[in-house]
Amino acid sequence: MLSVNEAVDSLLRPARRLVDTERVSLLDGLGRTLAEDVVAEIDVPPADNSAMDGYALRHADWRDAGTALKQSQRITAGSVPAPLEAGTAARIFTGAEVPAGADTVVMQERCEAIPGAVRILELPAAGANIRRRGQDLAVGQRVLTAGRRLRSQDLGLAASLGVAWVNAYRRLRVAILSTGDELVEPGDPAGPGQIFNSNRFTMSGQFAAWGFDVLDLGIARDRPDVLREKLTRAAAEADVIVASGGVSVGEEDHVKDVVASLGSLDLWRIAIKPGKPFAFGRVADTPFIGLPGNPVSVFVTLLVVARPYLFACQGAADTALVPVTGTACFSKRGTAREDYLRVRSVPEGLELFPNQSSGVLYSTCWGDGLVRQKAGENIHEGDRVDYLPFTAFA
Amino acid sequence: MLSVNEAVDSLLRPARRLVDTERVSLLDGLGRTLAEDVVAEIDVPPADNSAMDGYALRHADWRDAGTALKQSQRITAGSVPAPLEAGTAARIFTGAEVPAGADTVVMQERCEAIPGAVRILELPAAGANIRRRGQDLAVGQRVLTAGRRLRSQDLGLAASLGVAWVNAYRRLRVAILSTGDELVEPGDPAGPGQIFNSNRFTMSGQFAAWGFDVLDLGIARDRPDVLREKLTRAAAEADVIVASGGVSVGEEDHVKDVVASLGSLDLWRIAIKPGKPFAFGRVADTPFIGLPGNPVSVFVTLLVVARPYLFACQGAADTALVPVTGTACFSKRGTAREDYLRVRSVPEGLELFPNQSSGVLYSTCWGDGLVRQKAGENIHEGDRVDYLPFTAFA
Repeated sequence: MLSVNEAVDSLLRPARRLVDTERVSLLDGLGRTLAEDVVAEIDVPPADNSAMDGYALRHADWRDAGTALKQSQRITAGSVPAPLEAGTAARIFTGAEVPAGADTVVMQERCEAIPGAVRILELPAAGANIRRRGQDLAVGQRVLTAGRRLRSQDLGLAASLGVAWVNAYRRLRVAILSTGDELVEPGDPAGPGQIFNSNRFTMSGQFAAWGFDVLDLGIARDRPDVLREKLTRAAAEADVIVASGGVSVGEEDHVKDVVASLGSLDLWRIAIKPGKPFAFGRVADTPFIGLPGNPVSVFVTLLVVARPYLFACQGAADTALVPVTGTACFSKRGTAREDYLRVRSVPEGLELFPNQSSGVLYSTCWGDGLVRQKAGENIHEGDRVDYLPFTAFA
Repeated sequence: MLSVNEAVDSLLRPARRLVDTERVSLLDGLGRTLAEDVVAEIDVPPADNSAMDGYALRHADWRDAGTALKQSQRITAGSVPAPLEAGTAARIFTGAEVPAGADTVVMQERCEAIPGAVRILELPAAGANIRRRGQDLAVGQRVLTAGRRLRSQDLGLAASLGVAWVNAYRRLRVAILSTGDELVEPGDPAGPGQIFNSNRFTMSGQFAAWGFDVLDLGIARDRPDVLREKLTRAAAEADVIVASGGVSVGEEDHVKDVVASLGSLDLWRIAIKPGKPFAFGRVADTPFIGLPGNPVSVFVTLLVVARPYLFACQGAADTALVPVTGTACFSKRGTAREDYLRVRSVPEGLELFPNQSSGVLYSTCWGDGLVRQKAGENIHEGDRVDYLPFTAFA
């Protein structure tokens, strides 16, 4: 059996970006993956500016608290100051450009305005309250790198540099397929022997959260002709195909044979719990991922195994997760497989959902994350454990 | 000054949901806020089913490893089994309904198929490998509660119950306004004294991430007539107004007066760093939040102070964050205010961005979260600290 790390590496090693680039307005940039670095073409701030509302002056012009300096100009944010007349002060507001000749800003709370002039009651050090040109970002600085998935603050940063459009990778188009003769769509009546198709919703929701375009092929009956037609269409229209169910060893699963006949398929035995059956292959040239059928297995293998690969297909640079540390409020013996336990954080630590069966999707809704229990490792109450909040897979 | 907790509480106490409900297809449900509980109307699983590919039989019919039981039927997932004939076994596949009369499933690896019959080489305990009707969810169980923001697994769970549509709250409509005469939009040329408007992008990106509808009113010049027109429009068309800039004590800020003249405004002094100036009021009946102007202050007050309030307006039930614990790779003296330090996690712990100025938005892009440093609390290298990954604010 492959360890989870080996499986992720085996997927990542041959992975390559599958999407071209396009111009994207920064206003639509959330969650998009940068296709090129954003490099500062201006200094930020673009000129020395005031960090305070107050008065700008030449430090050397001040004598003592009694000195009244003539107010020679008034500089609001967005206006262009004249050079400071010697021996005068300029009224200045936060963000406004410091006039040439001034070297210090005194906050207004340390000043006393008098008609046409100002008394500086207390002088700070020379240079005080001035944000220097380029102190935050300097021309030429690479501030965001290709492969980054843009967050709100990244959009703000690019905007602060005057960038209104970025080159981003086209959204990865993922075809999803739910296989199984027992499946019926929610909203339709379920007869005896049937169950509602939940994996479709978990998968399409997760792919939407990751910023992918979803090509939803619905339920595929486990018949070679149906599967062949759906998979052929998926391969033609999508960048990647992800199917749930149909890749276990049972003789009733035709997915494996059909994928193999249209391309290639490897069945992987990954030492992961929940989620053992996993398949990877190609339909024509389109990568095919076969997830297990059990709903929790689908969810966990999607997050843990498929995510890094799919992000690489999208062109994302760094998809590694740094787990945080939590305290176990439970004890649990390890198994031969790496176990992703559904937990939730409470003030005392991490609480375990009592039923860790791979069929019980409710465990993932009750919980807010996963504890990673290494193969063979026992967890005792009070132990510090690796915790992966679901939000970390964003 | 208000502590951060007091400020959040003061906002939350009078907060009420501002949006009506609508029917939403589960396929479009990601990130939507549930307006009513989802209660199981069926058992999950709906009938006893097999957890394995194998053979279903009556436990009492087995004698020894030599016993051959006639294969009386073949039950695939989705088909309807006949009651099990006494003294026979049924071939059965994972997920298929267990026939009446059978009480045990033997996994196929413990069986030997012979023509028309099967030898059970090893008998598990009675009841083995059967997932019982209702063992995961029982009719009447409340599985998702009103106020929950739907995640991918929640969609899957609702689907597994046959739910295709949910009642959700309409998306909160947030009007955003960037105030400041020094602002120019990225893409336009910036003259002397001008800076690019970044807060608009940080705000609209963050609101999109939270699933809100954004009414983007762009830059408002700091003139009473412009502000009055924009704010009046915002109040008429949006549920909440969020403005950046214009609420400090400087005399050049007209936002305060205009909001007060159209409704009411309180200036709050919150002991938070970055982010001190904060205003809350109403334009006509529409809540108004005035954020600071500095880009990092906007980002941090949005996450820490505005988020719980906005989520409450959206109808979300629980917006509390449980911080995780990290190890500081830095030392830093506390200040009189609660300080939200920009950090990133590395294998050794949490690394501090060297420049914690509220003007340096780059700190939030470099970083992956915030360390919460309580007022007056010094942090020493190696200390365990409260860490809030940015993803936790999802």
